Amino acid sequence: MKPQINRRQFIKVLSAGAVSLALPGCVGPGKLNAGRGKEKKPNFIIIFCDDMGYGDLTCYGHPTIRTPNLDQMAGQGQKWMNFYVGASVCTPSRAALLTGRLPIRSGMCSDKRRVLFPDSAGGLPKNEVTIAEALKTEGYATACVGKWHLGHLRQYLPINNGFDSYFGIPYSNDMDKVGGQGREAFLEPKIEYFNVPLMRDEEIIERPADQNTITKRYTEEAIRFIRKSKNKPFFLYLAHNLPHVPLFVSKKFNDKSLRGLYGDVIEEIDWGVGQILRTLRREGLAENTFVVFTSDNGPWLTFKEHGGSAGLLREGKGCTFEGGMREPCIMWWPGKIRPAVVNDIGSTMDLYTTILTLAGANVPTDRVVDGLDLSPAIFGTGPSPRKVMFYYRGAKLYAVRKGPYKAHFITRLAYGKGANKEMHHDPPLLYHLGHDPSEKYDIAKDHLEVIAEIRKEITLHLATLVPGEDQLAKRIGKK
Amino acid sequence: MKPQINRRQFIKVLSAGAVSLALPGCVGPGKLNAGRGKEKKPNFIIIFCDDMGYGDLTCYGHPTIRTPNLDQMAGQGQKWMNFYVGASVCTPSRAALLTGRLPIRSGMCSDKRRVLFPDSAGGLPKNEVTIAEALKTEGYATACVGKWHLGHLRQYLPINNGFDSYFGIPYSNDMDKVGGQGREAFLEPKIEYFNVPLMRDEEIIERPADQNTITKRYTEEAIRFIRKSKNKPFFLYLAHNLPHVPLFVSKKFNDKSLRGLYGDVIEEIDWGVGQILRTLRREGLAENTFVVFTSDNGPWLTFKEHGGSAGLLREGKGCTFEGGMREPCIMWWPGKIRPAVVNDIGSTMDLYTTILTLAGANVPTDRVVDGLDLSPAIFGTGPSPRKVMFYYRGAKLYAVRKGPYKAHFITRLAYGKGANKEMHHDPPLLYHLGHDPSEKYDIAKDHLEVIAEIRKEITLHLATLVPGEDQLAKRIGKK
Repeated sequence: MKPQINRRQFIKVLSAGAVSLALPGCVGPGKLNAGRGKEKKPNFIIIFCDDMGYGDLTCYGHPTIRTPNLDQMAGQGQKWMNFYVGASVCTPSRAALLTGRLPIRSGMCSDKRRVLFPDSAGGLPKNEVTIAEALKTEGYATACVGKWHLGHLRQYLPINNGFDSYFGIPYSNDMDKVGGQGREAFLEPKIEYFNVPLMRDEEIIERPADQNTITKRYTEEAIRFIRKSKNKPFFLYLAHNLPHVPLFVSKKFNDKSLRGLYGDVIEEIDWGVGQILRTLRREGLAENTFVVFTSDNGPWLTFKEHGGSAGLLREGKGCTFEGGMREPCIMWWPGKIRPAVVNDIGSTMDLYTTILTLAGANVPTDRVVDGLDLSPAIFGTGPSPRKVMFYYRGAKLYAVRKGPYKAHFITRLAYGKGANKEMHHDPPLLYHLGHDPSEKYDIAKDHLEVIAEIRKEITLHLATLVPGEDQLAKRIGKK
Repeated sequence: MKPQINRRQFIKVLSAGAVSLALPGCVGPGKLNAGRGKEKKPNFIIIFCDDMGYGDLTCYGHPTIRTPNLDQMAGQGQKWMNFYVGASVCTPSRAALLTGRLPIRSGMCSDKRRVLFPDSAGGLPKNEVTIAEALKTEGYATACVGKWHLGHLRQYLPINNGFDSYFGIPYSNDMDKVGGQGREAFLEPKIEYFNVPLMRDEEIIERPADQNTITKRYTEEAIRFIRKSKNKPFFLYLAHNLPHVPLFVSKKFNDKSLRGLYGDVIEEIDWGVGQILRTLRREGLAENTFVVFTSDNGPWLTFKEHGGSAGLLREGKGCTFEGGMREPCIMWWPGKIRPAVVNDIGSTMDLYTTILTLAGANVPTDRVVDGLDLSPAIFGTGPSPRKVMFYYRGAKLYAVRKGPYKAHFITRLAYGKGANKEMHHDPPLLYHLGHDPSEKYDIAKDHLEVIAEIRKEITLHLATLVPGEDQLAKRIGKK
């Protein structure tokens, strides 16, 4: 891999003064308060979307979705171009983010059911250590706002996983379906078709949740938490339920986007990001708060205009092609992180390790943690430590990336006809993601040595693997 | 159409001070010196690439091509998201840019041959008024550097079309092929395979042109011209021969990109753009120079990794889907143009009319000029006047866009098997390019009224159309 940061670009940005706000206090991690000294520990905010694609922001090339706040955030911070999630669907992806571990280890993925459903009896196992739990040991205030989807029985809820408070819909916004006909219910949705609960902590406070105002209310809740917590270190996990279908948007954004309803939804989320960054500046918190914006998996392409775009990447949600698992990722921390476009590899699991390390919290050593500390890439002192990515579908390893090379041992369509059919490849399909980001040109036969190296990585990986008990197969009232 | 400028974005950018360099002198077109007063007329630079795709710059979402100079240019200026060329292949596209007219009017397109070849006897007709010719009447110094491709017989050369000087390869860099086997010659190219001439004015000064250094030499020539011309108004047309195959790059950029040779080439062009903008700043010319960066048509997809990417747009070079005719377009003029992401429609033909108007030159009134003055969108005073785009292939009208709707009456593959087969559609395929930028979902049957409107535009258009004499069919030694 080449150095992850485009140094020329960095210099260019500096010389133009375009990011002057971010520069005066720029420090490497050596000078960072790692949470051990007298200075206040850094705050952390993760803004997580649902089913947003790699190509859905202006700064990632979308021609008709306007995201001025995210574009500005990227200009002042880092825009990661090779950033992955831990799975191509909701539940396992969220488990990966919050535990720093591949979902296969926690049992939060399954070959039987892809995510948790309202009749699910499983959830994130008690022995998993979430970011919130780790940060609690360092005195952090913690809040979860938005979609949870790691178990909705009491013991699995956010407030039993390290969060001081919870406000949100505990699973996907298309669940508890009670009305509407087939796809129509999704493409011309009404609030009452989806009888999803809105919860505060452990209580249902609204049902069906009024999804028209949900993005706005999540944003407002997030801002209240930031204001309330400004005198202690805090961790905010804001997981929007949208742009997962069915799409809903508040009046202010309705029919405002050139991209239709899907664009309206993204533009409302973008507005929310702007509100949050503005709040941080106003409250004097910006230079002590690390903000990350990304999404849980690629766009749900079968929903056509109601789904997003993976840009030039192949396929979308639900599969192990890049469009399913690579996401926009924007990091922002004025005065601390080095503004840049980052081409190195990172993942949501790395956010776990990076955040815990920055907070001075212990990264668990009694288990395998897949996350790596991205600090060198974030602070511009070296490359990202991540060179390898494992692409699981359910409990099965489908593909592996090492450096620019990605080998697909199994491929399978995400949804629709043929989605139940696995295609096994021996030798695997091999793509050079640097030269061929759209995974078009199989170069396996000329790179058998690369495949051999990737097989070695798999052997090493499998030696560490103890699959967790399948949490997604458990159903209420069944064994 | 919605207003073309994302005002919220503009305000965001302002409030962050991110473009402070661009703001103090920000004026609307009313205050602009339109070339009639005592102040120096504005300078114009058009940087035109060859076969670069919509998705090939970092700021348009490419994950492994690093374009820090163009990204910065876009941040300080305007990034146009719906910007078109006049044809999906070289010769007609260049004719459209330089004459402000659809190539069918000048005869610079044909159903017999798609572009000019070394054995071509035709070229841009004498009665066409190029940007350079129009600006000469206003006292401009003019230079053409790079690929011409509007006729290589003496009477058609740049210096006989309004340019004071010419330095470049007069047609495509893959012509005059004298060596190499089939596709190999393109994918593992050597200088000597392509016996193209490098010309200064009317003389051949090198043959074969050393293409390894061609981008560097074009850039240096451009900078020399800028420095030499700084005391008079000037127009520089810098038309790179690359990234058209065969790809060549100078040593400094060889093997430096994560995207392979294609990325190396784009990154050298990006470097060149940085050098030019830096020269403008150093010479005190930046605030009086309007710079536009774009390309002639979409990526040549059949050349795989040696071709570019149209990002989320459908298809590439040679066809009338968006990937063939929509290009990145970045406009830069510190202190004058309004930094923004522009979603309205623009075209290279509009550059003609805009530039002539800004220079105080007369836009010809004795013929149909298709270009419109984009000043309102550029200076932030109103929407772009362009609402309609015509997509010709050769001499035949294939598709029409009106507002967000695009109707394909004929489609045809660009290259390869099936490329000689026209598919006629009645009703036409209809796509909503706002909601569906990838042209996936035909909505004709629900929008017959839109199709009727588009047909009216065609009737109006055809009433103005007198096809020019076919210049591309003429061969040396033949009738």
